[in-house]
Amino acid sequence: MLVFLLALVPLSGKNDGFTMHLLRAESPGPNVGKLVPKMRQTAAVLYGTYLALTVLNLIFLLAGGMHFFEAICTAFGTAGTGGFGIRNDSIASHSPYIQNVCTVFMLLFGVNFSIYYLLLLRRFRDVLGDEELRLYIGVVLGSILLITFNIRGIYTSVWEALRHSAFQVSSIITTTGFATTDFDLWPSFSKGILLMLMVIGACAGSTGGGLKCARVLLILKGIRRNMAQVLKPQRVQVIRVNQTPVGEKIISGTNAYLCAYVVVLAVSFLLVSIDGFSVTTNFSAVLSCFNNIGPGLEAVGPACNFSIFSPFSKIVLTVNMLAGRLEIFPILVLFSKSTWRRG
Amino acid sequence: MLVFLLALVPLSGKNDGFTMHLLRAESPGPNVGKLVPKMRQTAAVLYGTYLALTVLNLIFLLAGGMHFFEAICTAFGTAGTGGFGIRNDSIASHSPYIQNVCTVFMLLFGVNFSIYYLLLLRRFRDVLGDEELRLYIGVVLGSILLITFNIRGIYTSVWEALRHSAFQVSSIITTTGFATTDFDLWPSFSKGILLMLMVIGACAGSTGGGLKCARVLLILKGIRRNMAQVLKPQRVQVIRVNQTPVGEKIISGTNAYLCAYVVVLAVSFLLVSIDGFSVTTNFSAVLSCFNNIGPGLEAVGPACNFSIFSPFSKIVLTVNMLAGRLEIFPILVLFSKSTWRRG
Repeated sequence: MLVFLLALVPLSGKNDGFTMHLLRAESPGPNVGKLVPKMRQTAAVLYGTYLALTVLNLIFLLAGGMHFFEAICTAFGTAGTGGFGIRNDSIASHSPYIQNVCTVFMLLFGVNFSIYYLLLLRRFRDVLGDEELRLYIGVVLGSILLITFNIRGIYTSVWEALRHSAFQVSSIITTTGFATTDFDLWPSFSKGILLMLMVIGACAGSTGGGLKCARVLLILKGIRRNMAQVLKPQRVQVIRVNQTPVGEKIISGTNAYLCAYVVVLAVSFLLVSIDGFSVTTNFSAVLSCFNNIGPGLEAVGPACNFSIFSPFSKIVLTVNMLAGRLEIFPILVLFSKSTWRRG
Repeated sequence: MLVFLLALVPLSGKNDGFTMHLLRAESPGPNVGKLVPKMRQTAAVLYGTYLALTVLNLIFLLAGGMHFFEAICTAFGTAGTGGFGIRNDSIASHSPYIQNVCTVFMLLFGVNFSIYYLLLLRRFRDVLGDEELRLYIGVVLGSILLITFNIRGIYTSVWEALRHSAFQVSSIITTTGFATTDFDLWPSFSKGILLMLMVIGACAGSTGGGLKCARVLLILKGIRRNMAQVLKPQRVQVIRVNQTPVGEKIISGTNAYLCAYVVVLAVSFLLVSIDGFSVTTNFSAVLSCFNNIGPGLEAVGPACNFSIFSPFSKIVLTVNMLAGRLEIFPILVLFSKSTWRRG
């Protein structure tokens, strides 16, 4: 969406402010404008990365004996971290090899695309030091290990538990939505981790949704700063990401974003509750739609679908999906008169 | 707690900054320092209101034929919005009159105490125009009506439904925690509203917990401002509460508070999930403890208690109760070395 806008909007001229606004909305961290100076070139770099990764994914899937049409759909679903599987059981009936390929590529599409550009430039130190990437990898590895330990008794071997854990964690944190097992049957600690991952989401500048790791990073650093300020209110404390100071406007904007996120979540949860399903169903349905995941828990778990909801709830969840994908404030730009007046 | 600190801390001198910090923590709105200029006099006014309301509550309870010891415990529980009932069924086996008295006094203790001072000064226009009070009353009335409509089929008459709805709404939003019925058996829309009320909480400057209506008001106004700024980024927009401009520091501080709130909530939910109870049990238990309510839903519903949890979860929930009551950041002051060094 971002790349698409970047490639199109400049045509009409005078819209640099609008483009920058969208760019900022997608990447709340200090990474904005880090790539090539021209917007259009940035778009080309991002498009190239997207295409190359998709083709690579396709080749790996075909090598595993997947039917061509299925492979191309799965690769597209993974690339856009969009995804419902073609089959009714999503990716569950595919071979462990195919499942592992999906796990790896889901994770790759959840990484900030500027990281791949830095890799191309051989700036490995910048890549290794990137705090958002570290948080993303840390959360993924931590979640995989904790869930594997938690569900080890459910599957025949620890390796099978590890495979399912890695797949589901990757699918949820990157907001893809594929599944290889009914995680609604997992213990509630594992389900709790998955709910958390729905909120965290992938990296900024990736195809994934959710809050984005960059925002989570800024929020956590903000809390640490506030804690320190209670003790030493005199001291001026600047928040830094990747050694670069982050402006106070970005910090407060990120906090304001989370506030809007919480309020939309709460109101949607209440509206969906009218249908009378369980609290967990309603809460996970809203979390899942708002963060563009796919499956939720209980009545909207990976073995079920959203057909149970009333038309009214479906409209609420539809708005959630759009607001979550377009990052709340920009969707208001889309629906505002002044945006259309210019066109 | 606040009044207690206000009355004690100035004794040691040089602690005005610390006192103001605590005062600000309790009343995030523009109400700080609105009462009498001297801290100690303010404390006296608040103490007086507290005492007068408690005695009035006691008289009304005794008039309903309640046993003296029970009446005094109930009045104290209501005054501090603390409250578990003496009886195992809380207030359920008391007469409708007693229940209604509790409803009214819980709501009264959830009002910002400065409102009573304004009433004493006969500044009725200020009282009627107070935006926090309006939000509080609006949320209470709206919730009561919606829940009454939602549960009308469960009870023998609409009036009985109204009585239970009003009692439970008042008990939850003021974070008292009394109950007259097992609201865990209510439809999920009603339960959703109650969960929401747990978060909103009573007014700032009252004895209630939760986020506080003043914060909710600022957060909602902040979102409206951000929406307006997407459309007109050039315009400087000041947030006003009761016609008074609110400083940007208070706005961003409130947003930062909600962020810390969400993170503490999420981490606690995850830790409590290790015990393996249902998602709704864990989520409502954390919400209930963090906002100092009392009962939650499902396994910690009003007909149950928290004994099911492991010692580890109990420690997590204990910390939640303390952090929620002392408003997160001040509890860090309490546990920090530098605070104790001065003493």
